[in-house]
Amino acid sequence: VKHPAPLSEDALIETFFAPLAGEGGLRLRDDAALLRPPPGCEIVLTKDLLVAGVHFFNDDSPAAIARKALRVNLSDLAAKAAEPLGFLLGLALPAEWTAEWLKSFAAGLGEDAANYHCPLLGGDTVRTPGPLTISITAVGAVEAHKMVPRDGVKAGDRIYVTGTIGDAALGLKLRLGASADQDWIGALSEADARFLQGRYLLPQPRLVLRDALKAFANAAMDVSDGLAGDLGKMLRLAGMSATIEVADIPLSGAARRALKAAPRLIEAICAGGDDYELLCAVSPAKAASFEAAAAATGIGVSRLGAASAGEGAPAFVDAGGEAIHFARTSFQHF
Amino acid sequence: VKHPAPLSEDALIETFFAPLAGEGGLRLRDDAALLRPPPGCEIVLTKDLLVAGVHFFNDDSPAAIARKALRVNLSDLAAKAAEPLGFLLGLALPAEWTAEWLKSFAAGLGEDAANYHCPLLGGDTVRTPGPLTISITAVGAVEAHKMVPRDGVKAGDRIYVTGTIGDAALGLKLRLGASADQDWIGALSEADARFLQGRYLLPQPRLVLRDALKAFANAAMDVSDGLAGDLGKMLRLAGMSATIEVADIPLSGAARRALKAAPRLIEAICAGGDDYELLCAVSPAKAASFEAAAAATGIGVSRLGAASAGEGAPAFVDAGGEAIHFARTSFQHF
Repeated sequence: VKHPAPLSEDALIETFFAPLAGEGGLRLRDDAALLRPPPGCEIVLTKDLLVAGVHFFNDDSPAAIARKALRVNLSDLAAKAAEPLGFLLGLALPAEWTAEWLKSFAAGLGEDAANYHCPLLGGDTVRTPGPLTISITAVGAVEAHKMVPRDGVKAGDRIYVTGTIGDAALGLKLRLGASADQDWIGALSEADARFLQGRYLLPQPRLVLRDALKAFANAAMDVSDGLAGDLGKMLRLAGMSATIEVADIPLSGAARRALKAAPRLIEAICAGGDDYELLCAVSPAKAASFEAAAAATGIGVSRLGAASAGEGAPAFVDAGGEAIHFARTSFQHF
Repeated sequence: VKHPAPLSEDALIETFFAPLAGEGGLRLRDDAALLRPPPGCEIVLTKDLLVAGVHFFNDDSPAAIARKALRVNLSDLAAKAAEPLGFLLGLALPAEWTAEWLKSFAAGLGEDAANYHCPLLGGDTVRTPGPLTISITAVGAVEAHKMVPRDGVKAGDRIYVTGTIGDAALGLKLRLGASADQDWIGALSEADARFLQGRYLLPQPRLVLRDALKAFANAAMDVSDGLAGDLGKMLRLAGMSATIEVADIPLSGAARRALKAAPRLIEAICAGGDDYELLCAVSPAKAASFEAAAAATGIGVSRLGAASAGEGAPAFVDAGGEAIHFARTSFQHF
């Protein structure tokens, strides 16, 4: 249903987005947003672009699209141990936008903005002859000198990952539907399939791990492009490598059942994108404290071996110590 | 020339954008940027999206596209009397991107980032099946409680505008080329035509007016969608209106010559977009001080009448006091 008379940009902002604005958003009536940083804090900024047909499906529900766009940014803040302060929304809308679509989009966005205490601060809405494109800049705060960097891994650090890995990559395969590669679907229950697709559709930013990361982690990043590639990035920045036993990679029940039916899925699990779990590195002396602090949040963390000085991508090995080779280690944006 | 083997996202960032990174950009190797706000300052954030074919021409030089994308954001910071701290760049690249194009884009961006002391802090690069889309979030700082709001106009305030109005709208008409509406082109010299097109291509953010605005202005905004519409927005927020004599609107020599040849161009001049001049409102008691402070910066400011309590869009009148009606008062994004 096309809206009979599309709203002007101002009316669109007033109708759909002004109700989501936080105090610093100045009711979305100014050129800019105003933030008063919490005393003693530094500002952490992150920005992710999502393009219809590349990062989500055009026919995903508008609420899910909005929530994913915000959550992938919150996941970056979580990896830095930053507390969300708010976000700016850039929205390039194709000509066929409808008021109904935008209403649902804004409702989903508003729900997550409230849940994550991350209000809308401002942004820009334009038209595009191309696909729907969403650009969110999330702003967070962290006590001075407490941001957890990506490049801080030290030799001997325990490597941890939150939650379970590979669900979203399998969920994407299910969503893409029929192909020669689908013989494992029969091994899944309907609940399994729903779970995996849900993990692709709606990331869970691990913000509750903030205090544990801040207190105990030497380095952290979120896993957005695939565990193998992202772990490689984090280690490489510090001149480190690692050997990972694939049996140590935390899997959901659904992913276990899929992998049992089709062992080749280990590559999709290790190298597929959209996990939005956190990777971090913790000194051995702090490992027990980190594990206890993480356990208290209710988010599982799993040990994936240890960092050691050295060149080269992390090795993934099976129970017999045999190396497993991946054709690609991460989602390629180009 | 298509690059024979397109770079990965990481290589692209390392090659073209890491050299532009400021200290807070962490060499663009982290998930996020880190800003230490200047003591006693608040953070001002603004975000503008630019889409090829909507906000710039696909065949504009890559350096000019980059500079415009940054400058329209700097113009918003200027209107708030904020000092730039840095920016995040979101870039959605169509498949046909070339290393040559990106090199020029990054060179233009780097030149402006250096000139305006606004380093790159981070961002995201993705592919798009649609047109090139650029999303910049600019971050600035302003002393606490000193941001100049849009909604602060008071009855009696003098209204000022910087520079000259309408050049960019005429430059866009020239750029669009042959149409029935081009009889005035013969009245322009080649230098006039170049000047007007340059004003469309490359805005001049009026950051040097920062101290004058901060000290003397009750309200300010930048003129991006057309003087008539934008002035209307600023006044309406405060329950104000105004009567503007069109003879008071500051025009360049080139715009004067075009207007003399085709008086109907007054509508394009008053209601066309892309001026990126600043509008502000100043109490009568501070008007002389504001004018002196502005004059010291070398940026001309012109008086456009005064605000008065009342409903309704500002009236634009000719020398005889006759109202001039515009079909549209500003650039419509939808």
